[in-house]
Amino acid sequence: MLTKNHIKLIASLHQKKYRQQHGLFVVEGVKGVQEFLNSHYELFHLFATAPIFDAKTIEISDKELNKISQLKSPNKALAVFRIPQQKMMTPRGLVLALDDVRDPGNLGTIIRLCDWFGIENLVCSKATVDCYNTKVVQATMGSLTRVSIQYVDLEHYLKSASIPVFGTFMDGDSIYSEELPTEGIVIMGNEANGISDAIAKLVTKKLRIPRFGRLQATESLNVATATAIVLSEFKRS
Amino acid sequence: MLTKNHIKLIASLHQKKYRQQHGLFVVEGVKGVQEFLNSHYELFHLFATAPIFDAKTIEISDKELNKISQLKSPNKALAVFRIPQQKMMTPRGLVLALDDVRDPGNLGTIIRLCDWFGIENLVCSKATVDCYNTKVVQATMGSLTRVSIQYVDLEHYLKSASIPVFGTFMDGDSIYSEELPTEGIVIMGNEANGISDAIAKLVTKKLRIPRFGRLQATESLNVATATAIVLSEFKRS
Repeated sequence: MLTKNHIKLIASLHQKKYRQQHGLFVVEGVKGVQEFLNSHYELFHLFATAPIFDAKTIEISDKELNKISQLKSPNKALAVFRIPQQKMMTPRGLVLALDDVRDPGNLGTIIRLCDWFGIENLVCSKATVDCYNTKVVQATMGSLTRVSIQYVDLEHYLKSASIPVFGTFMDGDSIYSEELPTEGIVIMGNEANGISDAIAKLVTKKLRIPRFGRLQATESLNVATATAIVLSEFKRS
Repeated sequence: MLTKNHIKLIASLHQKKYRQQHGLFVVEGVKGVQEFLNSHYELFHLFATAPIFDAKTIEISDKELNKISQLKSPNKALAVFRIPQQKMMTPRGLVLALDDVRDPGNLGTIIRLCDWFGIENLVCSKATVDCYNTKVVQATMGSLTRVSIQYVDLEHYLKSASIPVFGTFMDGDSIYSEELPTEGIVIMGNEANGISDAIAKLVTKKLRIPRFGRLQATESLNVATATAIVLSEFKRS
């Protein structure tokens, strides 16, 4: 049975403050819920309109699901999982670091890219949008279960790292002609401002994604598409 | 002065039917409006809260702007421009073709990518989201003024093309090891279903974006990030 306390809890989890307080987050839809059930994530509550899953389910009506869902067309299930303890990983292999990426859709897309390109370690500055934000979770399409994410003081993290640090800038060297190593930290910047000055100082190799337009008027690429191009270049060689 | 007819016209332009009927579309924000004013687009109406532009302006109050804007935080200006006559271009150089891309944000991002990579000719199937949709126009950040877009019967278009046709599929050859030509049509598919069967039959060379994840569980890339990787590969060589 769906209780008032359930409704109140789920509504509160749309705010970062309460996600952190309860250590819980929301996943919606049959496919998304199944991906998290199959993963190392620990289930807290599972609501579904039918006995779909091989897990303890609170059966609810379509009307009740509509009440707790944030989706325009809710898809049969909503689950609450525990936020795992953040693992502090030593930078090794290829690490992606985000300097204040704010858009949930962008972060979700970037987590999918990490999953695709086998980047197991995604590092986010404290001001980057929360990866347990409901919109991020939806946009990752389950990739969140396979990518380890840590929120850090990025300046401190980079200062103590012993592997090369890459970032893209307008005045960097073409990413197409550089020999790119298999180990390093690649920084992608904020949607409006790019990589901040404090972080740019810690970059050991400046790269550039060449622009081909005849008019050369495009100002920038979206951060998720730029990440796609950069990760593809690091991995292709 | 902002009249009732202005308000009614602008509201109607959020629907494709009325955009086509009137041959008009909406651009919002100082930067976006300026990009269209500097381009070949023909201005129909310009509303602004101050005399910002070197063009005939209907001055309105902030409250009036709020009334006609679709943005959460309207930015001083809203303009109505004429939809230009669609130019039928013979496929030449590198052409990007979209097979039913439905999400306005994705189309906007793809138009920015075309601008960045110097793709001057973007071809869309009839079911692809309208490029004069307000959300698309906002997402293109002015790139719409530099990329020529045509809506076509894609099957017919490909059948009559005399240059190679590329598409990405799970069973294609790695895009990293193929010699990619400077001339060809690259097809990107629908968000949920990829390239449709009818269109897949017309592909002359199947490509694949290799996946690197240890778990190999990611199902797909977002269409805009996949487009970024594919265009980067075609252009880098």
